[in-house]
Amino acid sequence: MNVRIGTRTQHFRTVTFNAATNRVVLVEQRLLPHEFKLVETRAYRETARAITDMVVRGAGAIGATAAYGLAQGARVFRGRDQKKFTAHVAQVFRTLKDARPTAVDPVNAMNKVLAAMGAGETVEEQQALALAAAEEFANEDVQHCEAIGRHGAKLIRNGMRVLTHCNAGWLAFVDIGSATAPMYAAQAQGKKFHVFCDETRPRSQGATLTAWELAQQGISHEVIADNAAGFLMSRGEIDLVIVGSDRTLGRTGEVSNKIGTYTKAVLAHRHGIPFYVAIPLSTIDWNLRSGRDIPIEERDAGEVLGAWGVISNPKSRILNSKPGKRAYVRVANPTSCARNPGFDVTPPELITGVITPKGIFRPRDLQKLASAE
Amino acid sequence: MNVRIGTRTQHFRTVTFNAATNRVVLVEQRLLPHEFKLVETRAYRETARAITDMVVRGAGAIGATAAYGLAQGARVFRGRDQKKFTAHVAQVFRTLKDARPTAVDPVNAMNKVLAAMGAGETVEEQQALALAAAEEFANEDVQHCEAIGRHGAKLIRNGMRVLTHCNAGWLAFVDIGSATAPMYAAQAQGKKFHVFCDETRPRSQGATLTAWELAQQGISHEVIADNAAGFLMSRGEIDLVIVGSDRTLGRTGEVSNKIGTYTKAVLAHRHGIPFYVAIPLSTIDWNLRSGRDIPIEERDAGEVLGAWGVISNPKSRILNSKPGKRAYVRVANPTSCARNPGFDVTPPELITGVITPKGIFRPRDLQKLASAE
Repeated sequence: MNVRIGTRTQHFRTVTFNAATNRVVLVEQRLLPHEFKLVETRAYRETARAITDMVVRGAGAIGATAAYGLAQGARVFRGRDQKKFTAHVAQVFRTLKDARPTAVDPVNAMNKVLAAMGAGETVEEQQALALAAAEEFANEDVQHCEAIGRHGAKLIRNGMRVLTHCNAGWLAFVDIGSATAPMYAAQAQGKKFHVFCDETRPRSQGATLTAWELAQQGISHEVIADNAAGFLMSRGEIDLVIVGSDRTLGRTGEVSNKIGTYTKAVLAHRHGIPFYVAIPLSTIDWNLRSGRDIPIEERDAGEVLGAWGVISNPKSRILNSKPGKRAYVRVANPTSCARNPGFDVTPPELITGVITPKGIFRPRDLQKLASAE
Repeated sequence: MNVRIGTRTQHFRTVTFNAATNRVVLVEQRLLPHEFKLVETRAYRETARAITDMVVRGAGAIGATAAYGLAQGARVFRGRDQKKFTAHVAQVFRTLKDARPTAVDPVNAMNKVLAAMGAGETVEEQQALALAAAEEFANEDVQHCEAIGRHGAKLIRNGMRVLTHCNAGWLAFVDIGSATAPMYAAQAQGKKFHVFCDETRPRSQGATLTAWELAQQGISHEVIADNAAGFLMSRGEIDLVIVGSDRTLGRTGEVSNKIGTYTKAVLAHRHGIPFYVAIPLSTIDWNLRSGRDIPIEERDAGEVLGAWGVISNPKSRILNSKPGKRAYVRVANPTSCARNPGFDVTPPELITGVITPKGIFRPRDLQKLASAE
């Protein structure tokens, strides 16, 4: 999507690949919203570390990053020994898979790359097919998000107030995003609406990334504390909720997403507010039979005990455009520890619909898509 | 309660009065948990500002502060003109009342002081009665919290995991606290239990004040993001919720408390987890007929858009004991704004019981206490 750089507006993808240098090019998301910068990973282990360290995050973006990372890793192999090459590729696969154990997208994306490589007869052919498949994965990710936007935009009517949680925007995909796709499509159709961005502690991706995206795109929005949505719903100030998902179980309709999503679904259900989950098909896990089986990352306690930001004056609403000094402040009592589960699971009875590139489905009807995959 | 100062443990109240200097002495709560310090207000307007600026916060503490502030203001009047004195006292009352429009405690506390003053015949007598009444209010606040502890401790069984929101601890009262009173009493009875402290964005009173209190008192606890309680409940990791209240409607059983309380009540209800509100009787509003009539403060957007803390290393779990440099970091996108409602309203059907100094009542049965007031 667009980024305002000085007086210009320039289009970027979150993840691209430079075939000449064999580098993955990523938007450095940890510097946003205070600074927009691209970084390049020189080797697949660096690409895996970028996923672990959340330089890049979000279902589609880490899928494409892993796909490119697998191609990147495959392409550094020298020689013609098919057995050694296969072992090398398996090692690259494992490294990228282990970078984020909760997510299913890297595995799905890399499986597509592996399948494409199967058509090659020589190591060289397979290396070329790996890159072509990764590029295709990235392009399809964009097309899927465009399709989510077409279907989801129908849900947004003029004057609506839409709540979203975390960042399932273009920064979480290769472009356009899932939860934001209906918003960008509705904006393109000339509709006026307002978005509440849940702050999304402890990493605050709503306050930082989603708010930044919407501001770049000129969409009316406000940040709210994660505690505030219940109150706003009780006062009739939220009409629609759209969130993304890191993993959706195709068999059960259960949705795993950023911690706090489940809470918003429970609140929306109580208030009769439609709650939608927007996902590309690659996010669907067709294997697991229960949300209980989804591994939930317990992340570093420091995330909960403090916050990252730019040192500034609390009274100034609009900051100077040049980035200030980034710092981590310890907020919590210095002698206390924290629990920090990264994700939660929302059951299908709390979900009005799942917006996919193939249309909007009730969560229990996702099975119908199994053949489409 | 106790504060560890070096190797000693010393007892403090949150609010006291120095009659010789006519100053209100307050624990400077905005420096906690990083620094423990007392501040003194020299005049009633300064006392009101301390309430507005949240040097002191919490139902009982601001009640006692307002009571002392009214006595402080009354005591600076020079002369014998009863009419002028009455007008002066009314001015002091208004100033202290306007310091926090949502709270009912300052008004209830000051009404008690005013009523006691009515027995005095001269200005001097009324000034003395004002101070005596303020002292009595503070002592009664402590006794009420002790009684809440006696009744509430029965709810806490060995091995329980208790969730609390915001800070309704001794820092929110003159001593002991409301939501924490059952915990401190259960601890004194030798029970072992664990407390989850909701961070309580945007001001993070759970992560800062409640965690600090529990650490000083040696109670097992962890801080969690406000987003995490729903997940922990869904995994059976929370057995009991106890929160405080800034205003409870005696006629309807509706509970106004820190933003996010309503959300926790909705979640607890869904999971069949007992949800208790602990309050002294002074927090009960007998006038309002609907929670809709409770004014909800819209606080500064800067609270949501950033965080206050001490600049430090995110990887260190236990910080150096000497306080570091306090700073405000802007977390959110610099060009975005925020909504910041400070409180919400929880309906009686979501509340298992209200723990009062007179026993535990169902919220709709609070009417029975009307005659006790």
